[in-house]
Amino acid sequence: MKLLNTDHVAIAVRDLDAAIAGYKDRYGVAPISREVVEEQGVEEAMIPVGGSFVQLLMPTDPGGPVARFLDRHGEGLHHVAFAVADIEAALEHLSEMGARLIDSVPRRGGGGARIAFVHPADWAGTLVELVERT
Amino acid sequence: MKLLNTDHVAIAVRDLDAAIAGYKDRYGVAPISREVVEEQGVEEAMIPVGGSFVQLLMPTDPGGPVARFLDRHGEGLHHVAFAVADIEAALEHLSEMGARLIDSVPRRGGGGARIAFVHPADWAGTLVELVERT
Repeated sequence: MKLLNTDHVAIAVRDLDAAIAGYKDRYGVAPISREVVEEQGVEEAMIPVGGSFVQLLMPTDPGGPVARFLDRHGEGLHHVAFAVADIEAALEHLSEMGARLIDSVPRRGGGGARIAFVHPADWAGTLVELVERT
Repeated sequence: MKLLNTDHVAIAVRDLDAAIAGYKDRYGVAPISREVVEEQGVEEAMIPVGGSFVQLLMPTDPGGPVARFLDRHGEGLHHVAFAVADIEAALEHLSEMGARLIDSVPRRGGGGARIAFVHPADWAGTLVELVERT
């Protein structure tokens, strides 16, 4: 198992329009997609920055994980996502390592990707998402 | 001003050797460099993941900003760094926007890069580093 790329850095925000405008005005970058991902209770915007993305996440479900993150921490860095070639193989390897997984089987993410989260208590306090893009 | 690339995602850790070993065992990636950056009170390891890096940061100065971050938050995502072509032009643009800068003039980062930090209170709760690599 070897990570292929840093797919995205996710930032939890309260106001998606304002965050998009901020990135445009300050940093000259703009989303190529914006969609509601019901399963995760978020609306997300994907901003290409070189070979990866900044993902802005705004909760649509007030009881969902991103809403709870905002309640506890305020706006800020939420997770980092790495691209893998084979997400089942990656999860199997992590299970064998004794890693603490949030998703032991892949689910659907934005853009039709297959994704799985590794718990921040697993390693270095960081919520890690694995992404297999088709 | 336009961001060129996501240069790195920085993670604050208490034990750099353990964090490096974890990334190697779990994710099959390893540092290409490791150095003490006295000015920032850290030892840092740069792990290439596709077109950007994971930067693991361990404090060497118990009163420095990364040590204080660990005291308050524990291990986890610390900042995101974006590459720019001209860091003076980027800082001038941000100043004109009224952005809240930590560094109004560039300083030296790891690998001899010229860097500057934008305060997390400026936008979306995120500590942003701008990097001009030579």
